[in-house]
Amino acid sequence: MKLFNKAVIIGTGLIGGSLGLALKKQHLVSQIIGLSQHRRNASLAKKTGAIDYVGTSLEVVKGADLIILATPVDTIIDIALRISKKINKDCIVIDVGSTKDAIVSKISRVIPNFIGCHPLCGSEKRGVANLQEGMFNSSVCIITPTIKTNQNVLNKVILFWRKLGSRVVILSPKKHDQVLAFTSHLPHAVVFSLMGCIPMEFLSLSSAGLRDSTRISASDANLWSEVFLSNRRNLLASLSSFQTKLADLKLALERKNKKLLASILLAAKKKREKLG
Amino acid sequence: MKLFNKAVIIGTGLIGGSLGLALKKQHLVSQIIGLSQHRRNASLAKKTGAIDYVGTSLEVVKGADLIILATPVDTIIDIALRISKKINKDCIVIDVGSTKDAIVSKISRVIPNFIGCHPLCGSEKRGVANLQEGMFNSSVCIITPTIKTNQNVLNKVILFWRKLGSRVVILSPKKHDQVLAFTSHLPHAVVFSLMGCIPMEFLSLSSAGLRDSTRISASDANLWSEVFLSNRRNLLASLSSFQTKLADLKLALERKNKKLLASILLAAKKKREKLG
Repeated sequence: MKLFNKAVIIGTGLIGGSLGLALKKQHLVSQIIGLSQHRRNASLAKKTGAIDYVGTSLEVVKGADLIILATPVDTIIDIALRISKKINKDCIVIDVGSTKDAIVSKISRVIPNFIGCHPLCGSEKRGVANLQEGMFNSSVCIITPTIKTNQNVLNKVILFWRKLGSRVVILSPKKHDQVLAFTSHLPHAVVFSLMGCIPMEFLSLSSAGLRDSTRISASDANLWSEVFLSNRRNLLASLSSFQTKLADLKLALERKNKKLLASILLAAKKKREKLG
Repeated sequence: MKLFNKAVIIGTGLIGGSLGLALKKQHLVSQIIGLSQHRRNASLAKKTGAIDYVGTSLEVVKGADLIILATPVDTIIDIALRISKKINKDCIVIDVGSTKDAIVSKISRVIPNFIGCHPLCGSEKRGVANLQEGMFNSSVCIITPTIKTNQNVLNKVILFWRKLGSRVVILSPKKHDQVLAFTSHLPHAVVFSLMGCIPMEFLSLSSAGLRDSTRISASDANLWSEVFLSNRRNLLASLSSFQTKLADLKLALERKNKKLLASILLAAKKKREKLG
Protein backbone atom coordinates (compact mmCIF):
# COMPACT_ATOMS: atom_id res chain seq x y z
CA MET A 1 0.00 0.00 0.00
CA LYS A 2 1.45 3.32 -1.12
CA LEU A 3 1.21 5.97 1.61
CA PHE A 4 3.22 8.59 -0.27
CA ASN A 5 4.10 9.40 -3.84
CA LYS A 6 7.36 11.34 -3.78
CA ALA A 7 9.53 10.97 -0.67
CA VAL A 8 12.75 12.86 -0.07
CA ILE A 9 15.24 11.60 2.51
CA ILE A 10 17.67 14.30 3.54
CA GLY A 11 20.68 12.56 5.08
CA THR A 12 21.30 9.08 3.72
CA GLY A 13 23.36 7.72 6.63
CA LEU A 14 22.52 4.79 8.88
CA ILE A 15 18.99 5.84 9.79
CA GLY A 16 18.04 7.65 6.57
CA GLY A 17 19.42 4.87 4.36
CA SER A 18 17.86 2.10 6.42
CA LEU A 19 14.54 3.95 6.26
CA GLY A 20 14.84 4.01 2.46
CA LEU A 21 15.40 0.26 2.34
CA ALA A 22 12.48 -0.39 4.69
CA LEU A 23 10.12 1.91 2.75
CA LYS A 24 11.00 0.06 -0.46
CA LYS A 25 10.51 -3.34 1.12
CA GLN A 26 7.05 -2.35 2.37
CA HIS A 27 6.16 -0.53 -0.90
CA LEU A 28 5.08 2.52 1.10
CA VAL A 29 6.26 5.14 -1.41
CA SER A 30 6.36 5.42 -5.21
CA GLN A 31 9.77 7.04 -5.45
CA ILE A 32 12.52 8.06 -3.06
CA ILE A 33 15.03 10.80 -3.67
CA GLY A 34 18.04 10.87 -1.37
CA LEU A 35 20.13 13.88 -0.57
CA SER A 36 23.41 13.94 1.31
CA GLN A 37 25.91 16.61 2.19
CA HIS A 38 28.46 14.25 0.66
CA ARG A 39 27.23 13.28 -2.78
CA ARG A 40 29.17 10.01 -2.58
CA ASN A 41 27.04 8.82 0.35
CA ALA A 42 23.84 9.35 -1.59
CA SER A 43 25.34 7.52 -4.57
CA LEU A 44 26.23 4.59 -2.33
CA ALA A 45 22.70 4.63 -0.90
CA LYS A 46 21.37 4.44 -4.45
CA LYS A 47 23.61 1.45 -5.16
CA THR A 48 22.23 -0.42 -2.15
CA GLY A 49 18.70 0.31 -3.36
CA ALA A 50 17.82 2.57 -0.45
CA ILE A 51 16.89 5.44 -2.78
CA ASP A 52 15.84 5.73 -6.44
CA TYR A 53 17.49 9.02 -7.32
CA VAL A 54 20.31 11.13 -5.96
CA GLY A 55 19.23 14.71 -5.37
CA THR A 56 21.65 17.50 -6.12
CA SER A 57 20.12 20.36 -4.13
CA LEU A 58 17.35 21.13 -1.67
CA GLU A 59 15.22 22.11 -4.70
CA VAL A 60 14.24 18.43 -5.00
CA VAL A 61 11.81 18.86 -2.10
CA LYS A 62 9.42 20.61 -4.52
CA GLY A 63 6.41 18.42 -5.18
CA ALA A 64 7.29 15.91 -2.46
CA ASP A 65 4.50 14.70 -0.16
CA LEU A 66 6.91 13.25 2.42
CA ILE A 67 10.23 14.64 3.60
CA ILE A 68 12.37 12.81 6.13
CA LEU A 69 15.05 14.84 7.89
CA ALA A 70 17.73 12.32 8.84
CA THR A 71 20.78 14.53 9.28
CA PRO A 72 22.73 15.08 12.55
CA VAL A 73 20.63 16.73 15.24
CA ASP A 74 22.36 20.13 15.05
CA THR A 75 21.55 20.57 11.35
CA ILE A 76 17.87 19.56 11.34
CA ILE A 77 16.38 22.93 12.25
CA ASP A 78 18.47 24.81 9.72
CA ILE A 79 17.56 22.46 6.88
CA ALA A 80 13.87 22.61 7.84
CA LEU A 81 13.93 26.39 7.72
CA ARG A 82 15.61 26.30 4.32
CA ILE A 83 13.05 23.95 2.77
CA SER A 84 10.00 25.49 4.45
CA LYS A 85 9.27 27.85 1.57
CA LYS A 86 9.91 25.32 -1.17
CA ILE A 87 7.57 22.53 -0.07
CA ASN A 88 3.91 21.95 -0.93
CA LYS A 89 1.37 23.06 1.63
CA ASP A 90 0.24 19.47 2.25
CA CYS A 91 3.72 17.95 2.39
CA ILE A 92 4.34 15.99 5.61
CA VAL A 93 7.77 16.52 7.15
CA ILE A 94 9.24 14.28 9.84
CA ASP A 95 12.66 14.04 11.44
CA VAL A 96 14.42 11.17 13.20
CA GLY A 97 16.63 13.17 15.56
CA SER A 98 17.59 12.10 19.08
CA THR A 99 16.12 15.17 20.79
CA LYS A 100 12.76 16.77 20.17
CA ASP A 101 11.91 19.88 22.18
CA ALA A 102 13.90 22.53 20.33
CA ILE A 103 13.43 20.83 16.96
CA VAL A 104 9.65 20.55 17.24
CA SER A 105 9.09 24.01 18.68
CA LYS A 106 11.21 25.74 16.02
CA ILE A 107 10.19 23.73 12.96
CA SER A 108 6.46 23.54 13.63
CA ARG A 109 6.30 27.34 13.53
CA VAL A 110 7.29 27.31 9.86
CA ILE A 111 6.06 23.85 8.77
CA PRO A 112 2.61 23.11 10.27
CA ASN A 113 2.71 19.52 8.98
CA PHE A 114 5.97 18.76 10.76
CA ILE A 115 5.94 15.92 13.28
CA GLY A 116 8.98 14.98 15.35
CA CYS A 117 9.83 11.28 15.41
CA HIS A 118 12.52 9.28 17.16
CA PRO A 119 12.98 5.62 16.24
CA LEU A 120 14.90 4.01 19.13
CA CYS A 121 17.10 1.85 17.00
CA GLY A 122 20.41 3.55 16.39
CA SER A 123 23.80 1.97 16.61
CA GLU A 124 27.33 3.02 17.43
CA LYS A 125 28.03 2.33 13.76
CA ARG A 126 27.33 4.89 11.05
CA GLY A 127 26.92 5.20 7.35
CA VAL A 128 25.75 3.40 4.28
CA ALA A 129 27.92 0.33 4.96
CA ASN A 130 25.74 -0.58 7.94
CA LEU A 131 22.23 -0.11 6.54
CA GLN A 132 19.63 -2.52 7.92
CA GLU A 133 16.35 -2.96 6.15
CA GLY A 134 14.75 -4.46 9.28
CA MET A 135 16.08 -1.81 11.68
CA PHE A 136 12.65 -0.44 12.57
CA ASN A 137 10.90 -3.76 12.87
CA SER A 138 9.91 -4.50 16.49
CA SER A 139 11.57 -1.35 17.75
CA VAL A 140 9.91 1.59 19.49
CA CYS A 141 9.30 4.83 17.61
CA ILE A 142 8.46 7.85 19.76
CA ILE A 143 6.25 10.42 18.00
CA THR A 144 5.98 13.89 19.53
CA PRO A 145 2.96 15.83 18.27
CA THR A 146 1.88 19.18 19.75
CA ILE A 147 -1.60 20.51 20.50
CA LYS A 148 -1.54 22.14 17.06
CA THR A 149 -0.77 18.93 15.15
CA ASN A 150 -3.36 18.02 12.53
CA GLN A 151 -4.98 14.72 13.53
CA ASN A 152 -5.03 13.31 9.97
CA VAL A 153 -1.35 14.07 9.54
CA LEU A 154 -0.60 12.45 12.90
CA ASN A 155 -2.60 9.34 11.96
CA LYS A 156 -0.73 9.03 8.69
CA VAL A 157 2.66 9.32 10.42
CA ILE A 158 1.61 6.72 13.01
CA LEU A 159 0.52 4.41 10.19
CA PHE A 160 3.84 5.01 8.41
CA TRP A 161 5.87 3.77 11.41
CA ARG A 162 3.50 0.89 12.15
CA LYS A 163 3.86 -0.31 8.55
CA LEU A 164 7.62 -0.48 9.17
CA GLY A 165 6.95 -2.72 12.18
CA SER A 166 7.58 -0.12 14.88
CA ARG A 167 5.64 0.14 18.12
CA VAL A 168 4.53 3.76 18.27
CA VAL A 169 4.61 5.68 21.56
CA ILE A 170 3.22 9.22 21.74
CA LEU A 171 4.97 11.70 24.04
CA SER A 172 5.14 15.47 24.25
CA PRO A 173 8.48 16.82 22.95
CA LYS A 174 9.43 17.94 26.47
CA LYS A 175 8.62 14.56 28.01
CA HIS A 176 10.57 12.83 25.23
CA ASP A 177 13.69 14.81 26.04
CA GLN A 178 13.31 14.21 29.76
CA VAL A 179 12.95 10.44 29.29
CA LEU A 180 15.71 10.08 26.70
CA ALA A 181 18.10 12.04 28.91
CA PHE A 182 17.92 9.06 31.28
CA THR A 183 17.50 6.12 28.90
CA SER A 184 19.94 7.17 26.20
CA HIS A 185 21.95 10.35 26.71
CA LEU A 186 22.99 9.64 30.31
CA PRO A 187 24.15 6.08 29.52
CA HIS A 188 26.25 7.47 26.68
CA ALA A 189 27.76 10.21 28.89
CA VAL A 190 28.50 7.68 31.66
CA VAL A 191 30.05 5.14 29.35
CA PHE A 192 32.18 7.72 27.51
CA SER A 193 33.50 8.79 30.95
CA LEU A 194 34.05 5.19 32.06
CA MET A 195 36.05 4.44 28.95
CA GLY A 196 37.93 7.69 29.38
CA CYS A 197 39.21 6.80 32.86
CA ILE A 198 40.46 3.27 32.18
CA PRO A 199 44.26 3.29 31.78
CA MET A 200 45.17 2.30 28.23
CA GLU A 201 47.63 -0.38 29.37
CA PHE A 202 44.87 -2.20 31.31
CA LEU A 203 42.59 -2.66 28.30
CA SER A 204 43.95 -6.06 27.30
CA LEU A 205 42.88 -7.43 30.69
CA SER A 206 39.17 -6.89 30.34
CA SER A 207 36.35 -9.31 29.77
CA ALA A 208 33.03 -9.32 27.95
CA GLY A 209 31.48 -7.23 30.74
CA LEU A 210 33.57 -4.17 29.93
CA ARG A 211 33.25 -4.67 26.19
CA ASP A 212 29.44 -4.87 26.29
CA SER A 213 29.11 -2.02 28.80
CA THR A 214 31.20 0.35 26.71
CA ARG A 215 30.05 -0.54 23.19
CA ILE A 216 28.16 2.74 22.82
CA SER A 217 31.29 4.74 23.61
CA ALA A 218 32.45 3.84 20.09
CA SER A 219 29.67 6.15 18.85
CA ASP A 220 30.50 9.24 16.82
CA ALA A 221 31.96 11.96 19.04
CA ASN A 222 30.68 14.98 17.11
CA LEU A 223 27.22 13.59 16.66
CA TRP A 224 26.87 12.79 20.37
CA SER A 225 28.32 16.14 21.46
CA GLU A 226 25.49 17.75 19.52
CA VAL A 227 22.90 15.42 21.04
CA PHE A 228 24.20 16.22 24.55
CA LEU A 229 24.14 19.97 23.86
CA SER A 230 20.67 19.82 22.34
CA ASN A 231 19.32 18.20 25.54
CA ARG A 232 21.69 19.97 27.90
CA ARG A 233 19.42 20.80 30.83
CA ASN A 234 17.79 17.38 31.03
CA LEU A 235 21.12 15.65 30.66
CA LEU A 236 22.69 17.80 33.40
CA ALA A 237 19.78 16.87 35.69
CA SER A 238 20.14 13.15 34.94
CA LEU A 239 23.92 13.40 35.44
CA SER A 240 23.33 14.91 38.89
CA SER A 241 20.92 12.11 39.73
CA PHE A 242 23.52 9.55 38.63
CA GLN A 243 26.28 11.28 40.61
CA THR A 244 24.13 11.02 43.75
CA LYS A 245 23.56 7.28 43.21
CA LEU A 246 27.26 6.70 42.62
CA ALA A 247 28.16 8.69 45.74
CA ASP A 248 25.74 6.52 47.76
CA LEU A 249 27.45 3.37 46.54
CA LYS A 250 30.89 4.84 47.21
CA LEU A 251 29.91 5.84 50.75
CA ALA A 252 28.59 2.34 51.51
CA LEU A 253 31.90 0.98 50.26
CA GLU A 254 33.97 3.49 52.26
CA ARG A 255 32.06 2.54 55.40
CA LYS A 256 32.33 -1.20 54.61
CA ASN A 257 28.56 -1.36 54.96
CA LYS A 258 27.95 -4.70 53.28
CA LYS A 259 24.21 -4.70 53.92
CA LEU A 260 23.65 -1.25 52.40
CA LEU A 261 25.96 -2.03 49.48
CA ALA A 262 24.12 -5.26 48.67
CA SER A 263 20.75 -3.49 48.88
CA ILE A 264 21.93 -0.83 46.39
CA LEU A 265 23.12 -3.50 43.95
CA LEU A 266 19.98 -5.61 44.42
CA ALA A 267 17.67 -2.68 43.63
CA ALA A 268 19.61 -2.06 40.40
CA LYS A 269 19.61 -5.75 39.51
CA LYS A 270 15.84 -6.01 39.96
CA LYS A 271 15.30 -2.97 37.76
CA ARG A 272 17.65 -4.36 35.12
CA GLU A 273 15.73 -7.62 35.03
CA LYS A 274 12.64 -5.68 33.93
CA LEU A 275 14.56 -4.49 30.85
CA GLY A 276 14.78 -8.04 29.52
CA MET B 1 46.96 -36.02 28.60
CA LYS B 2 46.12 -36.37 32.28
CA LEU B 3 47.65 -33.58 34.36
CA PHE B 4 45.99 -34.64 37.59
CA ASN B 5 44.56 -37.78 39.12
CA LYS B 6 42.00 -36.71 41.70
CA ALA B 7 40.57 -33.21 41.36
CA VAL B 8 38.13 -31.64 43.81
CA ILE B 9 36.07 -28.64 42.75
CA ILE B 10 34.68 -26.77 45.75
CA GLY B 11 31.77 -24.68 44.51
CA THR B 12 29.99 -26.14 41.48
CA GLY B 13 28.38 -22.95 40.20
CA LEU B 14 28.94 -21.27 36.84
CA ILE B 15 32.74 -21.19 36.93
CA GLY B 16 33.34 -24.38 38.94
CA GLY B 17 30.85 -26.41 36.91
CA SER B 18 32.08 -25.07 33.58
CA LEU B 19 35.65 -25.91 34.66
CA GLY B 20 34.51 -29.47 35.36
CA LEU B 21 33.02 -29.78 31.88
CA ALA B 22 36.14 -28.32 30.26
CA LEU B 23 38.49 -30.59 32.24
CA LYS B 24 36.48 -33.63 31.15
CA LYS B 25 36.44 -32.55 27.54
CA GLN B 26 40.21 -32.15 27.51
CA HIS B 27 40.77 -35.33 29.58
CA LEU B 28 43.01 -33.40 31.96
CA VAL B 29 42.00 -35.29 35.14
CA SER B 30 41.12 -38.88 36.00
CA GLN B 31 38.26 -38.10 38.34
CA ILE B 32 36.48 -34.99 39.58
CA ILE B 33 34.66 -34.70 42.88
CA GLY B 34 32.37 -31.72 43.27
CA LEU B 35 31.33 -30.14 46.52
CA SER B 36 28.69 -27.47 47.01
CA GLN B 37 27.22 -25.72 49.99
CA HIS B 38 23.89 -26.76 48.53
CA ARG B 39 24.04 -30.48 47.86
CA ARG B 40 21.42 -30.11 45.11
CA ASN B 41 23.78 -27.94 43.03
CA ALA B 42 26.49 -30.59 43.13
CA SER B 43 23.94 -33.25 42.14
CA LEU B 44 22.86 -31.11 39.18
CA ALA B 45 26.51 -30.63 38.21
CA LYS B 46 26.92 -34.42 38.28
CA LYS B 47 23.90 -34.79 36.00
CA THR B 48 25.41 -32.41 33.43
CA GLY B 49 28.64 -34.44 33.52
CA ALA B 50 30.70 -31.64 35.07
CA ILE B 51 31.77 -33.87 37.99
CA ASP B 52 31.99 -37.62 38.59
CA TYR B 53 31.07 -37.73 42.25
CA VAL B 54 29.26 -35.51 44.71
CA GLY B 55 31.30 -34.89 47.82
CA THR B 56 29.55 -34.71 51.17
CA SER B 57 32.17 -32.92 53.27
CA LEU B 58 35.54 -31.21 53.03
CA GLU B 59 37.10 -34.57 53.97
CA VAL B 60 37.02 -35.46 50.24
CA VAL B 61 40.07 -33.27 49.68
CA LYS B 62 42.22 -36.02 51.20
CA GLY B 63 44.36 -37.66 48.54
CA ALA B 64 43.51 -35.06 45.89
CA ASP B 65 46.34 -33.65 43.76
CA LEU B 66 44.30 -30.69 42.50
CA ILE B 67 41.80 -28.58 44.40
CA ILE B 68 39.89 -25.77 42.73
CA LEU B 69 38.29 -23.20 45.01
CA ALA B 70 35.34 -21.83 43.04
CA THR B 71 33.13 -20.43 45.78
CA PRO B 72 32.17 -16.74 46.26
CA VAL B 73 35.17 -14.53 46.96
CA ASP B 74 34.36 -13.95 50.66
CA THR B 75 34.40 -17.69 51.46
CA ILE B 76 37.59 -18.72 49.66
CA ILE B 77 40.07 -17.91 52.45
CA ASP B 78 37.98 -19.64 55.11
CA ILE B 79 37.62 -22.82 53.07
CA ALA B 80 41.33 -22.84 52.23
CA LEU B 81 42.23 -22.58 55.92
CA ARG B 82 39.86 -25.42 56.72
CA ILE B 83 41.31 -27.79 54.10
CA SER B 84 44.96 -26.81 54.67
CA LYS B 85 45.58 -29.57 57.23
CA LYS B 86 43.72 -32.28 55.34
CA ILE B 87 45.46 -32.06 51.97
CA ASN B 88 48.56 -33.89 50.73
CA LYS B 89 51.81 -31.94 50.85
CA ASP B 90 52.11 -31.97 47.05
CA CYS B 91 48.49 -31.09 46.32
CA ILE B 92 48.13 -28.03 44.09
CA VAL B 93 45.38 -25.63 45.14
CA ILE B 94 44.05 -22.87 42.89
CA ASP B 95 41.13 -20.48 43.18
CA VAL B 96 39.15 -18.60 40.54
CA GLY B 97 38.10 -15.57 42.62
CA SER B 98 37.72 -12.05 41.25
CA THR B 99 40.27 -10.48 43.62
CA LYS B 100 43.69 -11.80 44.51
CA ASP B 101 45.73 -9.79 47.00
CA ALA B 102 44.11 -10.81 50.29
CA ILE B 103 43.37 -14.33 49.06
CA VAL B 104 46.91 -15.06 47.90
CA SER B 105 48.65 -13.50 50.89
CA LYS B 106 46.49 -15.35 53.41
CA ILE B 107 46.24 -18.74 51.73
CA SER B 108 49.86 -19.06 50.60
CA ARG B 109 50.94 -18.84 54.24
CA VAL B 110 49.19 -22.13 55.01
CA ILE B 111 49.21 -23.82 51.58
CA PRO B 112 52.61 -23.33 49.87
CA ASN B 113 51.33 -24.89 46.61
CA PHE B 114 48.47 -22.41 46.33
CA ILE B 115 48.33 -20.25 43.21
CA GLY B 116 45.70 -17.58 42.69
CA CYS B 117 43.99 -17.64 39.30
CA HIS B 118 41.34 -15.45 37.70
CA PRO B 119 39.80 -16.56 34.42
CA LEU B 120 38.21 -13.43 32.87
CA CYS B 121 35.11 -15.12 31.57
CA GLY B 122 32.30 -14.70 34.06
CA SER B 123 28.75 -13.77 33.26
CA GLU B 124 25.88 -11.99 34.94
CA LYS B 125 24.23 -15.43 35.01
CA ARG B 126 24.95 -17.95 37.72
CA GLY B 127 24.60 -21.59 38.48
CA VAL B 128 24.53 -25.01 36.93
CA ALA B 129 21.84 -24.09 34.39
CA ASN B 130 24.32 -21.85 32.57
CA LEU B 131 27.45 -24.03 32.43
CA GLN B 132 29.58 -23.61 29.32
CA GLU B 133 32.17 -26.18 28.41
CA GLY B 134 33.99 -23.72 26.15
CA MET B 135 33.95 -20.84 28.64
CA PHE B 136 37.74 -20.72 29.07
CA ASN B 137 38.61 -21.18 25.43
CA SER B 138 40.15 -18.03 23.93
CA SER B 139 39.69 -16.09 27.17
CA VAL B 140 42.37 -14.59 29.35
CA CYS B 141 43.34 -16.25 32.64
CA ILE B 142 45.39 -14.12 35.02
CA ILE B 143 47.72 -16.13 37.27
CA THR B 144 49.20 -14.41 40.33
CA PRO B 145 52.24 -16.22 41.72
CA THR B 146 54.42 -14.75 44.48
CA ILE B 147 58.20 -14.78 44.87
CA LYS B 148 57.79 -17.93 46.98
CA THR B 149 55.82 -19.87 44.36
CA ASN B 150 57.46 -23.14 43.30
CA GLN B 151 58.37 -22.89 39.61
CA ASN B 152 57.25 -26.45 38.78
CA VAL B 153 53.88 -25.85 40.38
CA LEU B 154 53.52 -22.60 38.49
CA ASN B 155 54.42 -24.29 35.19
CA LYS B 156 51.82 -26.99 35.79
CA VAL B 157 49.11 -24.43 36.57
CA ILE B 158 50.03 -22.46 33.44
CA LEU B 159 49.83 -25.65 31.38
CA PHE B 160 46.45 -26.46 32.99
CA TRP B 161 44.90 -23.17 31.78
CA ARG B 162 46.57 -23.34 28.37
CA LYS B 163 45.12 -26.82 27.83
CA LEU B 164 41.69 -25.27 28.42
CA GLY B 165 42.42 -22.76 25.65
CA SER B 166 43.10 -19.76 27.89
CA ARG B 167 45.72 -17.11 27.21
CA VAL B 168 47.73 -16.93 30.43
CA VAL B 169 48.86 -13.57 31.82
CA ILE B 170 51.12 -13.42 34.89
CA LEU B 171 50.60 -10.54 37.32
CA SER B 172 51.44 -9.94 40.95
CA PRO B 173 48.35 -10.21 43.19
CA LYS B 174 48.53 -6.47 43.94
CA LYS B 175 48.78 -5.51 40.27
CA HIS B 176 45.90 -7.85 39.46
CA ASP B 177 43.63 -6.10 41.93
CA GLN B 178 44.67 -2.67 40.72
CA VAL B 179 43.96 -3.56 37.08
CA LEU B 180 40.69 -5.39 37.74
CA ALA B 181 39.41 -2.46 39.81
CA PHE B 182 39.37 -0.50 36.54
CA THR B 183 38.49 -3.18 34.00
CA SER B 184 35.85 -5.07 35.95
CA HIS B 185 34.87 -3.77 39.38
CA LEU B 186 34.51 -0.10 38.37
CA PRO B 187 32.34 -0.90 35.32
CA HIS B 188 30.08 -2.97 37.57
CA ALA B 189 29.85 -0.21 40.19
CA VAL B 190 29.12 2.41 37.51
CA VAL B 191 26.50 0.33 35.76
CA PHE B 192 24.74 -0.65 39.00
CA SER B 193 24.54 3.09 39.79
CA LEU B 194 23.35 3.95 36.28
CA MET B 195 20.57 1.39 36.48
CA GLY B 196 19.74 2.60 39.97
CA CYS B 197 19.07 6.18 38.86
CA ILE B 198 16.86 5.51 35.83
CA PRO B 199 13.20 6.07 36.77
CA MET B 200 11.31 2.78 36.57
CA GLU B 201 8.58 4.25 34.34
CA PHE B 202 11.14 5.26 31.68
CA LEU B 203 12.51 1.74 31.20
CA SER B 204 10.12 0.80 28.40
CA LEU B 205 11.53 3.66 26.30
CA SER B 206 15.09 2.44 26.05
CA SER B 207 17.00 0.93 23.17
CA ALA B 208 19.73 -1.66 22.71
CA GLY B 209 22.33 0.83 23.94
CA LEU B 210 20.95 0.89 27.48
CA ARG B 211 20.32 -2.85 27.50
CA ASP B 212 23.87 -3.73 26.46
CA SER B 213 25.46 -1.13 28.72
CA THR B 214 23.63 -2.37 31.80
CA ARG B 215 23.69 -6.13 31.23
CA ILE B 216 26.23 -6.67 34.02
CA SER B 217 23.95 -4.92 36.53
CA ALA B 218 21.86 -8.10 36.46
CA SER B 219 24.78 -9.77 38.26
CA ASP B 220 24.34 -11.23 41.73
CA ALA B 221 24.15 -8.45 44.34
CA ASN B 222 25.69 -10.34 47.26
CA LEU B 223 28.50 -11.78 45.21
CA TRP B 224 29.44 -8.38 43.81
CA SER B 225 29.17 -6.64 47.18
CA GLU B 226 31.82 -9.08 48.39
CA VAL B 227 34.00 -8.50 45.34
CA PHE B 228 33.76 -4.71 45.86
CA LEU B 229 34.62 -5.04 49.57
CA SER B 230 37.51 -7.38 48.87
CA ASN B 231 39.08 -4.82 46.53
CA ARG B 232 37.82 -1.77 48.41
CA ARG B 233 40.82 0.55 48.25
CA ASN B 234 41.54 0.00 44.57
CA LEU B 235 37.88 0.34 43.69
CA LEU B 236 37.56 3.57 45.69
CA ALA B 237 40.56 4.94 43.79
CA SER B 238 39.11 3.96 40.42
CA LEU B 239 35.74 5.43 41.41
CA SER B 240 37.45 8.74 42.21
CA SER B 241 39.18 8.67 38.85
CA PHE B 242 35.84 8.02 37.14
CA GLN B 243 34.13 10.81 39.09
CA THR B 244 36.78 13.24 37.88
CA LYS B 245 36.26 12.22 34.24
CA LEU B 246 32.50 12.54 34.60
CA ALA B 247 32.84 15.96 36.23
CA ASP B 248 35.04 17.09 33.29
CA LEU B 249 32.34 16.04 30.82
CA LYS B 250 29.63 17.71 32.91
CA LEU B 251 31.59 20.95 33.09
CA ALA B 252 32.12 21.02 29.32
CA LEU B 253 28.37 20.53 28.93
CA GLU B 254 27.50 23.22 31.50
CA ARG B 255 29.77 25.66 29.67
CA LYS B 256 28.39 24.61 26.27
CA ASN B 257 31.98 23.97 25.21
CA LYS B 258 31.33 21.89 22.12
CA LYS B 259 35.00 21.55 21.19
CA LEU B 260 36.05 20.28 24.62
CA LEU B 261 33.04 17.98 24.84
CA ALA B 262 33.77 16.45 21.44
CA SER B 263 37.43 15.95 22.35
CA ILE B 264 36.43 14.10 25.56
CA LEU B 265 34.10 11.81 23.64
CA LEU B 266 36.62 11.26 20.84
CA ALA B 267 39.36 10.19 23.27
CA ALA B 268 36.96 7.63 24.80
CA LYS B 269 35.84 6.43 21.37
CA LYS B 270 39.43 5.89 20.23
CA LYS B 271 40.22 3.92 23.37
CA ARG B 272 37.07 1.84 22.98
CA GLU B 273 38.03 0.96 19.42
CA LYS B 274 41.19 -0.69 20.77
CA LEU B 275 39.01 -3.05 22.81
CA GLY B 276 37.61 -4.62 19.66
